[in-house]
Amino acid sequence: MNERLKFEIQAESGAARVGVLETTHSALETPVFMPVGTAGVVKAMTAGQVEELGAQIILGNTYHLYLRPGLEVLEGAGGLHGFSGWRRSLLTDSGGFQAFSLKKLRKLDDDGVEFRSHLDGSAHVFTPEKVMEIQGVIGSDIAMVLDDCPGMPCEPERLDAALRRSTLWAERAKRCIRPSHQSLFAIGQGGLDIARRLAHLRSLVEIGFDGYALGGLSVGETPPEMHACVREVAPAMPREKPRYLMGVGTPWDLVECVAAGIDMFDCVLPTRTARMGTVYTDDAGGRGRRLSIKRAEVRFDHGPIQEGCECLTCRTVSRAYLRHLYVSNEITGMVLLTLHNLHYYLRLMEEIRRAIRGGTMEELLEAYRRTGTDLAAEPTD
Amino acid sequence: MNERLKFEIQAESGAARVGVLETTHSALETPVFMPVGTAGVVKAMTAGQVEELGAQIILGNTYHLYLRPGLEVLEGAGGLHGFSGWRRSLLTDSGGFQAFSLKKLRKLDDDGVEFRSHLDGSAHVFTPEKVMEIQGVIGSDIAMVLDDCPGMPCEPERLDAALRRSTLWAERAKRCIRPSHQSLFAIGQGGLDIARRLAHLRSLVEIGFDGYALGGLSVGETPPEMHACVREVAPAMPREKPRYLMGVGTPWDLVECVAAGIDMFDCVLPTRTARMGTVYTDDAGGRGRRLSIKRAEVRFDHGPIQEGCECLTCRTVSRAYLRHLYVSNEITGMVLLTLHNLHYYLRLMEEIRRAIRGGTMEELLEAYRRTGTDLAAEPTD
Repeated sequence: MNERLKFEIQAESGAARVGVLETTHSALETPVFMPVGTAGVVKAMTAGQVEELGAQIILGNTYHLYLRPGLEVLEGAGGLHGFSGWRRSLLTDSGGFQAFSLKKLRKLDDDGVEFRSHLDGSAHVFTPEKVMEIQGVIGSDIAMVLDDCPGMPCEPERLDAALRRSTLWAERAKRCIRPSHQSLFAIGQGGLDIARRLAHLRSLVEIGFDGYALGGLSVGETPPEMHACVREVAPAMPREKPRYLMGVGTPWDLVECVAAGIDMFDCVLPTRTARMGTVYTDDAGGRGRRLSIKRAEVRFDHGPIQEGCECLTCRTVSRAYLRHLYVSNEITGMVLLTLHNLHYYLRLMEEIRRAIRGGTMEELLEAYRRTGTDLAAEPTD
Repeated sequence: MNERLKFEIQAESGAARVGVLETTHSALETPVFMPVGTAGVVKAMTAGQVEELGAQIILGNTYHLYLRPGLEVLEGAGGLHGFSGWRRSLLTDSGGFQAFSLKKLRKLDDDGVEFRSHLDGSAHVFTPEKVMEIQGVIGSDIAMVLDDCPGMPCEPERLDAALRRSTLWAERAKRCIRPSHQSLFAIGQGGLDIARRLAHLRSLVEIGFDGYALGGLSVGETPPEMHACVREVAPAMPREKPRYLMGVGTPWDLVECVAAGIDMFDCVLPTRTARMGTVYTDDAGGRGRRLSIKRAEVRFDHGPIQEGCECLTCRTVSRAYLRHLYVSNEITGMVLLTLHNLHYYLRLMEEIRRAIRGGTMEELLEAYRRTGTDLAAEPTD
């Protein structure tokens, strides 16, 4: 047992499992969804509201926090917990994904990656050691190793170089000194190539980490392609350690990937779609549907987003009012829509855990697969 | 006693008084500050947050609500209370000030005012009767009569025409049918001309209303000019009715005008300045100071906005964090800064009421006058 992170599996149904994950800041049940707090805040939410929603862990982005407010400020505040007022568990990504995906990459070699800030164009270098130092200052409960994320599609030569380099960097990250409460997860890459994914995971398991993540998915492939890949790979991840699928996904994705054996997820979807005026519902049409609050017919719709939903938004205001706030560019509209979507995601995870314990995952999966297949066939709004 | 609005004076100190105002939705102590909820929402706040701050009454703008969401929507929702989820008292202005000040005025005669929407340029007419019909649909507890607001500076002929027309319109408004819970206030005009203000008030009192307001102040004159005018005029307003100073003001203005005999205030200052990154504090420098959270030295300031302040913001996060949120354009920054400023205003009104009861208004006035005079001499930030 690891003193920094306890993980215990309590129930299983097929490849899916319910577990309890314990950090020094909170205990939480898996499968878990982690709201994204890129800049040390879940967008549009106060820390208290995220607590009230029942979230036990959120994600912070190392790249963003390193650039702003910067390490000096975070150090003075006693880390991100002290700075932000968030009292429960905190996971930080390694910053690699941002450094690569923001297209500000300048130089990449075995030492690390050099990139330019999206804020002011200044040049910075992330090495595996530097990224561990930053996450140490942030003081997250779970840190991630720096990985080489080549993006997809990718030539096999580039992919193999990325896998070799990611393993090298994982080794170096593990040798770094961490705060005594911080655990460390490694990130498996390999695109949609199952053999490469499995080989890379084996090399990481050989080094030994507190948990394992799958990176580089949900980056353009179709949902069924992604689900099929996770179904092959997740069961090969160590059974006794938390399995984390990074940056995923839609409600449908969550149900599919839990069924495949994943325990942890993070995604900007619920918060970002809310700010764009789209909310998740379980309308007559099916589970996990999307509703654009901007639609003209919503103007006179005095019912809640979702009949029976217990979120603050649905308990207190109507679709018509939310539409009015949204078209009037009222900040409160963003707040109330974000609250509902996060509530939707967190309640779905509760339902998933109940379904695993009760042996009804198959039905839940079928319901979400139906809508998901419908939605995937629709043009994106 | 009026069944729609009860008002009882409980304590007096000089011209200042503490009273209890009772509508069908809530009882509240005066002097009172009413947060502005222009579009049916106090910007950046949920209705629950405004309740938790202790606000017992907010203001809605008839002009804005009429244009959006529009009367059809409000009617379907059972008025603004049902639409917005706000459960306490509600006052609506008459829309006249907006129709005049938005510079979209097209035609003005004794019948009413024709203006163009700032949203889509469509033409609309406000008559005293139309404005009462709109406020009836909104269902506010306190409605205001349409007045002719000529703006300042103003030729004497235009001013006299505005006063004559405002009295005419007040008469017509009073003859309109109102919801059984709605009371009606008239608005006295007259610029900084005391004789004209007093004469106009007399003509309104002759018609008879549930309360009286002073309009057309804080529109460009200096604070001492405005305070001097209110000191002359407020004591001439009926003693047994609530006295409302519209659109005012800074913390200093509130203390000065309460001392002059005013009971009710509304102003966008606390909410608007918050969204621009400025907060109110009682720092060593004096009462009612302003702090720009954007300032460079705030970056490393890990204390609260105001030591000892009991608002959610000061209890949970630092100036440095608020600065970080603000410069990162995080919605949550606007929310937390708005919370603090509204808390500041509402606690100041509590302190004012205590000072009237305790006979210490003079000291409070001196403290705010000192900072106010300093700030008025500073360039605006």
